[in-house]
Amino acid sequence: MRSETYNHIPERVLMGPGPSDVPARVLEAMGRPTIGHLDPFFLSLMDQVAQRLRAVFCTTNAMTLAVSGTGSAGMETLAANLLEPADRALICINGVFGGRMRDVAERCGAQVETIEKPWGSVFDQDEVIDAMRRVGPKLVGIVHAETSTGAHQPIDRLGAAARDCGALLMVDCVTSLGGAPVRVDQWQIDAAYSGTQKCLSCPPGLSPITLGDRAVEAIDARRSRVQSWYLDLTMVRHYWGADRAYHHTAPINMLYALHEALGIVLEEGLEARWARHVEMHERLKAGLAPMGIDYVSDPAHSLPMLNAVGVPKGVDDAAARRRLLEEYGLEIGGGLGAFKGSAWRIGLMGHAATHRNVDLLLAALSRVLG
Amino acid sequence: MRSETYNHIPERVLMGPGPSDVPARVLEAMGRPTIGHLDPFFLSLMDQVAQRLRAVFCTTNAMTLAVSGTGSAGMETLAANLLEPADRALICINGVFGGRMRDVAERCGAQVETIEKPWGSVFDQDEVIDAMRRVGPKLVGIVHAETSTGAHQPIDRLGAAARDCGALLMVDCVTSLGGAPVRVDQWQIDAAYSGTQKCLSCPPGLSPITLGDRAVEAIDARRSRVQSWYLDLTMVRHYWGADRAYHHTAPINMLYALHEALGIVLEEGLEARWARHVEMHERLKAGLAPMGIDYVSDPAHSLPMLNAVGVPKGVDDAAARRRLLEEYGLEIGGGLGAFKGSAWRIGLMGHAATHRNVDLLLAALSRVLG
Repeated sequence: MRSETYNHIPERVLMGPGPSDVPARVLEAMGRPTIGHLDPFFLSLMDQVAQRLRAVFCTTNAMTLAVSGTGSAGMETLAANLLEPADRALICINGVFGGRMRDVAERCGAQVETIEKPWGSVFDQDEVIDAMRRVGPKLVGIVHAETSTGAHQPIDRLGAAARDCGALLMVDCVTSLGGAPVRVDQWQIDAAYSGTQKCLSCPPGLSPITLGDRAVEAIDARRSRVQSWYLDLTMVRHYWGADRAYHHTAPINMLYALHEALGIVLEEGLEARWARHVEMHERLKAGLAPMGIDYVSDPAHSLPMLNAVGVPKGVDDAAARRRLLEEYGLEIGGGLGAFKGSAWRIGLMGHAATHRNVDLLLAALSRVLG
Repeated sequence: MRSETYNHIPERVLMGPGPSDVPARVLEAMGRPTIGHLDPFFLSLMDQVAQRLRAVFCTTNAMTLAVSGTGSAGMETLAANLLEPADRALICINGVFGGRMRDVAERCGAQVETIEKPWGSVFDQDEVIDAMRRVGPKLVGIVHAETSTGAHQPIDRLGAAARDCGALLMVDCVTSLGGAPVRVDQWQIDAAYSGTQKCLSCPPGLSPITLGDRAVEAIDARRSRVQSWYLDLTMVRHYWGADRAYHHTAPINMLYALHEALGIVLEEGLEARWARHVEMHERLKAGLAPMGIDYVSDPAHSLPMLNAVGVPKGVDDAAARRRLLEEYGLEIGGGLGAFKGSAWRIGLMGHAATHRNVDLLLAALSRVLG
C-alpha cells in the first residue's frame, strides 16, 4: 500500500484528447516542497504565472489568472461572472463542448439561444455574426477547438462583430492554447478559458483565463452576486491582484507546474510551437491515409492537435484501443457523444507532438489493424 | 526563467493555518508521470482513494470522493447539491468559515437563518438543536474546526437531532480531518467536506467529501438542476462510480498525492495520529504560557491542530511574523476577519505536528519577542 503503487504506474505515451505527456521538468517542479499561499516567494511566482499566461494568450489583459479547477471550471467561471439571471446568451454548438457551454449558461439563469452545426463542421463566421445581430445577446460563446470532433473554428472576425452588437465574446480554447494561434487582443476576444493538460503539457487541475476591459466592466456592473462563491472573480481577483486578500488556498504545487510548463512553451516560442503542431498533424494525416483512415472533421478545418478520425470498418473500437494501450502503452481517445464508438481521437499536444510519437502510433496501428 | 526558480524555493517550516508541510513520499508520488483519467490503472487508484477516504472519515458511505477543487469547493459542492432555491438552511456562525457557509448557501438561493456565537467560543449542542427545532431547516451547517478562531465545536449529538427534525447535517471538517476524530457514521453526519492541505499533509487542490444515504436521497429528489455544472454530483458520481462516465478531467497528479498522503495517515493509524496532535498541542501550550501568550479560543474547546493565540501586547504582528519567516523559514498565520492584527494562528497539522517543530517555534518566538 506504500509507494509501490507509484513504482507500478504504467509507462504511457499520451496521444488521446488530454492529458498529454508532461515533460520531466514540469513534474519535477510540481514535486518541489509546498510553501504557503501567502508566502512572498509564492506571490511573486503567481505574478510570473500571470505574466507568462498573458504572453501565451497574446494579450495585455490585467485580469489573467489560473482558476483553481480544470478547464470546465474555467468555462463556468466566465459564464457565472459574465451572466446574470435573465441575461441573453448565444451559444454556438457543433460538439460536446458547445453543448456543455449551453448547459452551464442555462444553469447561470441565462436565456440561452443556440445555433447548431453538424458534428465535425465549423460555423461560417458570417452565420455567427448574423445570429448575434438577430439575438442581441449579452454574451456569445463559441468553441475554438472542439475536442469532441477535431473541428478548428475560425474566430478572428467575431470579436469586432460582437463589439458592434454590444455583446461579449467568450471563447473556449481549452485544446488550442499553446498549440495553435489564440490571439486574444488582435481578435478582440473579451474572455477566454483554457486547460493545462492539453497543449501546455502540464497536469490537469488549473484553468487559465483572461478577461478584457469590457468583460471586467460587465462584472463591475453586476446587479447580483455571482452564484458561485468559489469561482467569484470579484473576490478571486483580489488574491491575484495587488491586495493579495485571502480567498481560498491556491493549489500551490499545480502552480509550480504551470509556471514551468509555460516557461517551456515560451522558450520554444509560440510561432515555432504552432508550426510544430501543424507539421506533426500533416505527418500523421499522411500516414493514416494509406491505411484508409479518414478524418471525421471538415478537412479544411481540422485541428492540428486533435485528430478525430473514423474507426475503420470492421474494427472493434474498444478492442483496438485496448491493444494499443496494453501492447504499446499508447493511449488514444475514443469518440465522445455522437461519435462514441465510431471515431478515435488522436492527440498531438504540446510535448507529445513529436515525429517519434507519430511514427510509433502509425507503426502500432498498422500492427493492431493488420 | 528555467528551473532555477524552483531551486530557489525557500526552505519553509509550515506552521500556519495550512498548507502544512508535505512529506517527501507525497511530493514524490505527485511528481510521477501523468497518465490518462480513464486509464484502468488510474481508475483503480481512484477506487483506492475513495476507500482510504472512507477509512479516514470513519464511514462506509458509498458516495465518498475528492472534489476537483480546494476545501471551499467542497463546501460549495455540498451546499449546491443539497440545497435548492427557497430551501431553508440553518447556519451556525462563530468565525470566518461559518460566515462563508452562509454566503455560499445564500448564493444557492436558500433562505438562510443563522445563529451566532462570539469568535473563539463554541455552540452548546442544545442551542443548535433548539434552533433546528425552531427553524425546521432542510440543512444545518456547522464548522467542526473553525480555522479562523481555533475553536473545536462538539458535534457528536447533532446528527441524531437533525434526523429527528428531518434535517440534513453538513459539517466543515477541513481542518480537523486526520488530526482529530471525525466519526461520520457514529455521529450520523449526513455530509462532510474537508481539504487536503491541513492534517492530511497533502498539497492543496482537492476537497474530500462524503455523503450518507439521506443526503444522496435528497439529491435524487431534486426538482431543479444543480446550479453548478462543475460541482454537480449527479454527474460527478458517475465518473467515480462503476460506469466511469467522463465528466471533467480529474487532477491526476493531485490524486496520486492524496492517495499517498492517505496511505501515510492510515499507516500511522487514526487513534495514534489524533493522540499525537493533542500531545503536540499541549507541549506548545505549555511552552507559550510562560511567555505570556494566551489562547483566544475557549480553553475548554481549543483545537489541537490550530492554535489561535493573542499577539502579545506591544508586539508588531506583521514584523514578528516576518522575522520568523526570514530568519527561521517559519510560517505562522496572522489573524483573519475579526482577529486580523490581534491573533496568530499556529498550525500543528499532520506531518508538521512534531516536537521538533514545537520546540523550534518556541525557541524562535522567544528570540523574536525577547
